Amino acid sequence: MITIYGDPISGNCLKVKWTCERLAIPFAWIDVNVVNRETRTDAFLAMNPAGQVPIIVLDDGRTLAQSNAIILHLAEGSALIPADPYDRAKMFEWLFWEQYSHEPSIAVVRFQVKYLGRPRAEVDAALIAKAEAALGLMDRALEGRRFLVADQLTLADVALVAYTRFAHDGGFVLADYPAVDAWVRRVETELPIKEPR
Amino acid sequence: MITIYGDPISGNCLKVKWTCERLAIPFAWIDVNVVNRETRTDAFLAMNPAGQVPIIVLDDGRTLAQSNAIILHLAEGSALIPADPYDRAKMFEWLFWEQYSHEPSIAVVRFQVKYLGRPRAEVDAALIAKAEAALGLMDRALEGRRFLVADQLTLADVALVAYTRFAHDGGFVLADYPAVDAWVRRVETELPIKEPR
Repeated sequence: MITIYGDPISGNCLKVKWTCERLAIPFAWIDVNVVNRETRTDAFLAMNPAGQVPIIVLDDGRTLAQSNAIILHLAEGSALIPADPYDRAKMFEWLFWEQYSHEPSIAVVRFQVKYLGRPRAEVDAALIAKAEAALGLMDRALEGRRFLVADQLTLADVALVAYTRFAHDGGFVLADYPAVDAWVRRVETELPIKEPR
Repeated sequence: MITIYGDPISGNCLKVKWTCERLAIPFAWIDVNVVNRETRTDAFLAMNPAGQVPIIVLDDGRTLAQSNAIILHLAEGSALIPADPYDRAKMFEWLFWEQYSHEPSIAVVRFQVKYLGRPRAEVDAALIAKAEAALGLMDRALEGRRFLVADQLTLADVALVAYTRFAHDGGFVLADYPAVDAWVRRVETELPIKEPR
């Protein structure tokens, strides 16, 4: 049985939980509180020198970090990874875009506003513009589509929904992005996601 | 034959070129000047709505973006991707870490100093600290190792060497990270990389 070290406020950590649940992979969950800096203790840094959740510990004690690397490992050979090489490549394109352009804006604004208590008016305007650009790009990509890649639920949807569904915590209005809004509800139903928004 | 749209000053673009050269994949290269904002023209945005290089265009006209997604697609089935599932997962861990923690600090400091002409003393100190932390983490990971994963050259090395070998452009001193310094020279020889540092 694998062990997930994660914080339930972190979309990156929930991705791993949802992938296990979808694929009926048994797991134990150990809470690591990010706000209290529990990822910075010597014990945690010995497991992940990058000081980030989530990590998983496998049966044999080996560890793995980076949410998207973890879900790729867990979902290997499943329908969450498209069989067609180009579709799979597009899934990877979304996974890397998520970590480069989406999470560092949308999740960071949410963290500052909701968990650090920073008034939204004091959040870096460039960061908010970057988040809005990310939501706009997704909205155009999802127009007329059920899922991000290949008309099937893939890890691209799992990864992107994680913080998109919490965008309102950072003051973003999903109703302004109707294709994204409908897609979030679709992915929540399909996975399914039990955690409330 | 695939076409690479890239800027030769971009490590992300060179990753794609090196992967093609290593695997003897024929390609055409079309220069796209980032500093002149040629990634923001309507014609380019039609190919990649994210407005970033590199992209590749396949034989059939379909496009693919995100450097690490591209090299994964090109290297599928080759020795640049480890066969062992855990080794492959560790390669993915490095690829996502590169895009989240390494490129946004090391490449961005380099770009500001070398290409925007910003004096290094005026670069955000937190960004420099993040870059130094990334180099330190790599140095500890590489101690006693030839390559990042599984004692073989993998896409993790291709992706991480891209901006690490240009870190001096941002004022970082690789000699302060001796395991990284030796690894850069090893990867440059092994790939091999022809572009001067």
